[in-house]
Amino acid sequence: MLYLNGRILPLAEGRISVEDRGFQLGDGVYEVIKIEDGRLLWVEDHLGRLNGSLDQTLLAGVLDGHPLAEILPELVRLSGLRRGTAYVQVTRGAAPREFGLPTHVQPTVLAYVQAHSFPSDADVRAGVAVHTVEDQRWARCDIKSTNLLPAVLAKHEARLAGAHEALYVSADGMVREGGSSNAFIVLDGTLRTHPANNRILNGITRCHVLDLARELGLPLLEQAVHVSDLPRASEVFIASTTRDVMPVVRIGGLGSGILTPGGGTPGEVTLSLVDAMRSLIAESLADPIPRPPATI
Amino acid sequence: MLYLNGRILPLAEGRISVEDRGFQLGDGVYEVIKIEDGRLLWVEDHLGRLNGSLDQTLLAGVLDGHPLAEILPELVRLSGLRRGTAYVQVTRGAAPREFGLPTHVQPTVLAYVQAHSFPSDADVRAGVAVHTVEDQRWARCDIKSTNLLPAVLAKHEARLAGAHEALYVSADGMVREGGSSNAFIVLDGTLRTHPANNRILNGITRCHVLDLARELGLPLLEQAVHVSDLPRASEVFIASTTRDVMPVVRIGGLGSGILTPGGGTPGEVTLSLVDAMRSLIAESLADPIPRPPATI
Repeated sequence: MLYLNGRILPLAEGRISVEDRGFQLGDGVYEVIKIEDGRLLWVEDHLGRLNGSLDQTLLAGVLDGHPLAEILPELVRLSGLRRGTAYVQVTRGAAPREFGLPTHVQPTVLAYVQAHSFPSDADVRAGVAVHTVEDQRWARCDIKSTNLLPAVLAKHEARLAGAHEALYVSADGMVREGGSSNAFIVLDGTLRTHPANNRILNGITRCHVLDLARELGLPLLEQAVHVSDLPRASEVFIASTTRDVMPVVRIGGLGSGILTPGGGTPGEVTLSLVDAMRSLIAESLADPIPRPPATI
Repeated sequence: MLYLNGRILPLAEGRISVEDRGFQLGDGVYEVIKIEDGRLLWVEDHLGRLNGSLDQTLLAGVLDGHPLAEILPELVRLSGLRRGTAYVQVTRGAAPREFGLPTHVQPTVLAYVQAHSFPSDADVRAGVAVHTVEDQRWARCDIKSTNLLPAVLAKHEARLAGAHEALYVSADGMVREGGSSNAFIVLDGTLRTHPANNRILNGITRCHVLDLARELGLPLLEQAVHVSDLPRASEVFIASTTRDVMPVVRIGGLGSGILTPGGGTPGEVTLSLVDAMRSLIAESLADPIPRPPATI
């Protein structure tokens, strides 16, 4: 089932105008929220970030009359879904095509839930391979917009190379983030990740990883790692809504051969965060008042 | 009237799935073609560039079975339109949302025509104001993709400043192009424009301007101008499908005050190209075999 501009419909009946600015101009933003045990995980965090994206794209206020905090659980209930994702997309709506902002237009507000199979314990123990690609994205990656062609192409390049995920590296060699995940690197005993600036999307899972790392007393630095330091990394992992904490056991695309952080098996820091994240998720699902992340 | 995946429909009935990858992932490309005297201007050039965009986005071949060179004139005929634009958009089609390329999917092929009022002689004599904005776009601006949120925001910023068009300037101060136009600058007696690399969209009108400048024997250089040289520019103009050659008489957003190239009136080189472009367009519309541009 799908929510579209105030109506609940079967997903197959969800249709929008060809003049929707989301379709013609990429003039919209989105969120993906995890559903576990029939409950939405960290939905307030996601809706908070969605509002931030709307502010940044001059769409503030368009969710008035669309109470997503009520609509999303209702969609989960109607679907009977236990595990999957909720997808929310908001665009500036349908108007005759021109770049200038239309004055009278109804935004398009879309939400639906879908089954999704998350990594199993065995998948996590096996880890994933990532493939570095040049970060060709725009300078506002902090906005979760639907301008995702660069990610489509980067992830395709990674898959052609046999990897599960792309790892964006800037023209000057800084490791930024994954194609749809944040990257964490243990270097010289310190857990490092790119700071939450305009060059990455500040993941909800990323924020919770940082919280957990602090609780575990891990040395932590929000500072990008240079690609030339990757061979010295003892552990690498990615974090995202659909993969939680996922060890990276193989890095390709560097030109200097394949890297296998931790000898190709998940390391101690990573596994401690895998466990802590599982506990936090279980706790968050059980607790009707979710813990806010430290920084979004 | 609208063409959508093999059918001709009224525009208001043109609907696509909410799962269209063009809507959710910006996974598509487009063209805008001028219609004058009920005829499509340089349609072969536009369709050639569209095929280039499709190649670059791993969509080669999706137009098989969609003969746009026949469909577009038929849409013009059905509409009875004399002046306006044809809009063509091609996306990878509707599939359950994921970044990876779907294996079995029908592309979405959309085309329609609409009335559009082009600048009058008085508009051209008056010229336009542009406003510089930092170029925050991705590194593949040569692909005419629908990832246009940066352009929406840049053009809005320009309009807030009272300008008609945004002028993208790179972080290191190079003048790139307009929000939906190419920029030309007469500096030290030479007509300059950004080279057709990954940082600009190589306009069809741009190519014809270059041809005309060569025919007129104007000193010409496809080399970007630094923003600090703009105060010395004797003339500036923009070129696009909907504006042909349009004088720029005012440049704001530089921090160092407002510039008025040519004392705020269109200059000699610009006006010679305005005239030459009008003749070329009249000739192209009269001639069933269009002249190819020098470089696309």
